[in-house]
Amino acid sequence: MKKKILEMLRDANKNFVSGESIAEIMNVSRTAIWKHIQSLRKRGYTISSSERLGYKLEQIPDLLRPEIVQFELQTKILATDSNYVYKNSIESTNELAKKMAYHGAADGTVIVAEEQTGGKGRLERSFFSPKEKGIWFSVILRPHCMAKDAPKFTLMAAVAVARAMERFNLRAEIKWPNDIMYDGRKLVGILTEMSAEIGHVNYIVVGIGINVNVCREEFPESIREIAASLSEMAGENISRTKFFRALLEEFDKLYIANNFDEVFKIWRKFNITLGKKVTVLSAETGDIFTGMAVDIDKDGALIVETNEGRKTVYAGDVSIRPAK
Amino acid sequence: MKKKILEMLRDANKNFVSGESIAEIMNVSRTAIWKHIQSLRKRGYTISSSERLGYKLEQIPDLLRPEIVQFELQTKILATDSNYVYKNSIESTNELAKKMAYHGAADGTVIVAEEQTGGKGRLERSFFSPKEKGIWFSVILRPHCMAKDAPKFTLMAAVAVARAMERFNLRAEIKWPNDIMYDGRKLVGILTEMSAEIGHVNYIVVGIGINVNVCREEFPESIREIAASLSEMAGENISRTKFFRALLEEFDKLYIANNFDEVFKIWRKFNITLGKKVTVLSAETGDIFTGMAVDIDKDGALIVETNEGRKTVYAGDVSIRPAK
Repeated sequence: MKKKILEMLRDANKNFVSGESIAEIMNVSRTAIWKHIQSLRKRGYTISSSERLGYKLEQIPDLLRPEIVQFELQTKILATDSNYVYKNSIESTNELAKKMAYHGAADGTVIVAEEQTGGKGRLERSFFSPKEKGIWFSVILRPHCMAKDAPKFTLMAAVAVARAMERFNLRAEIKWPNDIMYDGRKLVGILTEMSAEIGHVNYIVVGIGINVNVCREEFPESIREIAASLSEMAGENISRTKFFRALLEEFDKLYIANNFDEVFKIWRKFNITLGKKVTVLSAETGDIFTGMAVDIDKDGALIVETNEGRKTVYAGDVSIRPAK
Repeated sequence: MKKKILEMLRDANKNFVSGESIAEIMNVSRTAIWKHIQSLRKRGYTISSSERLGYKLEQIPDLLRPEIVQFELQTKILATDSNYVYKNSIESTNELAKKMAYHGAADGTVIVAEEQTGGKGRLERSFFSPKEKGIWFSVILRPHCMAKDAPKFTLMAAVAVARAMERFNLRAEIKWPNDIMYDGRKLVGILTEMSAEIGHVNYIVVGIGINVNVCREEFPESIREIAASLSEMAGENISRTKFFRALLEEFDKLYIANNFDEVFKIWRKFNITLGKKVTVLSAETGDIFTGMAVDIDKDGALIVETNEGRKTVYAGDVSIRPAK
């Protein structure tokens, strides 16, 4: 009922809809309609009313609820229909996603929360995810691919974010493999996990955390020098709803196309790592070395030219050395 | 109490131990001792008794209970102390292993069952696991390695089985990557699954199913032509307890050594795939092709020389073509 009323108000496109006509269509009393309007207001919708003209939807709250994000969402696999799980608060969207994937959740299922109380980055590092200030979500993917192909989806996710930012006239800078940076500080973190048999991925969970409207002083001191937000970059607050919708649509397109040559091409366009002198802490060997980042290979691994020859980095921490 | 009595009988090394001396050491009545002996007999232990001489442990049941398998087991990581989970019947040891690994079970934890009611092979194929006829188990490993390295542990498991078989004077034939064959039929199946972040394995679950004392006619007709058992190969029944202990010890040694050059060297020694003409159904591309299997690469992938050049097979079904 509430959903239907909301639709009617939305369809009116910022015009008044008379309580009488709503009551008639829904076949309930005008008092019942009024109660639903009150309830919508409590959920954050700004609805003005006039005894003569009826109700007008002034503003939709900038929350990530399904009825808001899924409204006019143009995706075919991601976040469709019931494949959208919304939580006000959660420990970690990746943890729930992994649990749901294990129990058979569909390809493209999205789990999003207004707040994470125990958000995690790589290697169990904690990830700051304050209430209604960012977009903290995970996508369950079930591509037909091998375990060795999973890292490519991390680059795909970074490219999807860059494309979504483009829609807001923000130019993404991707640091290998998938950090989105602004002014040398991190805007977006991506954590990809998977379950696989040898030669066959069961599922991939891509967790993406985006600092949208976090002010500088809202970041804990410990990360203030290494974190940034879209609002800081744009110089104004960004609609989380709209950004999330843009991102889901871009990710959906890339996922359906399944064309990694194209993904890598776009990735190269936005990357800030290649052609730079980098210091690498290899996750594989624990080695630290310095060299020139020259390219990514067909699996998305970073190729670094060092004094001891070319090294291929599959995972690790890369810092870009300041130009001298 | 029962465990202590069992130890005393074992220590006596097939000699009688008087009920009186047991009662004295345990500080309980001879009747109490007799009750425990009865209970041990019910659990499968053959214990003879003489009014004059006392009790003698004649035979330990060929079951995979911890007190039997762990007795004199020489391992440092696998199946140590409480890291041994025994089930009389279970749906699938891999499923329980994955659940336990997710909840933090230790490196080396072994889950073994006398019977699996829903044993699984690759790609959800069912795996026949009849009661007390084989060894159906899973090992949880937490190596410091990357997702791309996980397949190597599958080859390690196959090598461990080959080494255990050697102790029983049975010569293993390994078909790439990890099937152990006898007379062109499968003796042992291995299913490796993992959970990983990009660049960091959370855990690997290696499931191993060994047909030990399954007679030809006990196999369901559907697999009779493609399955074999150790007893058939040896011409006599094999002690499951002893074989399991041997396998755990060999696996433990290889796992601790963490030397894949050595693993691959032994793998090559036992393999029956290299140098043969093979037909491959690639799990990666779905392609079917024929060629000469020439070697495995540093990741354990199969290199096949075809008319269209060299192909690297990371996973798939390989059948060896009969020599003409």
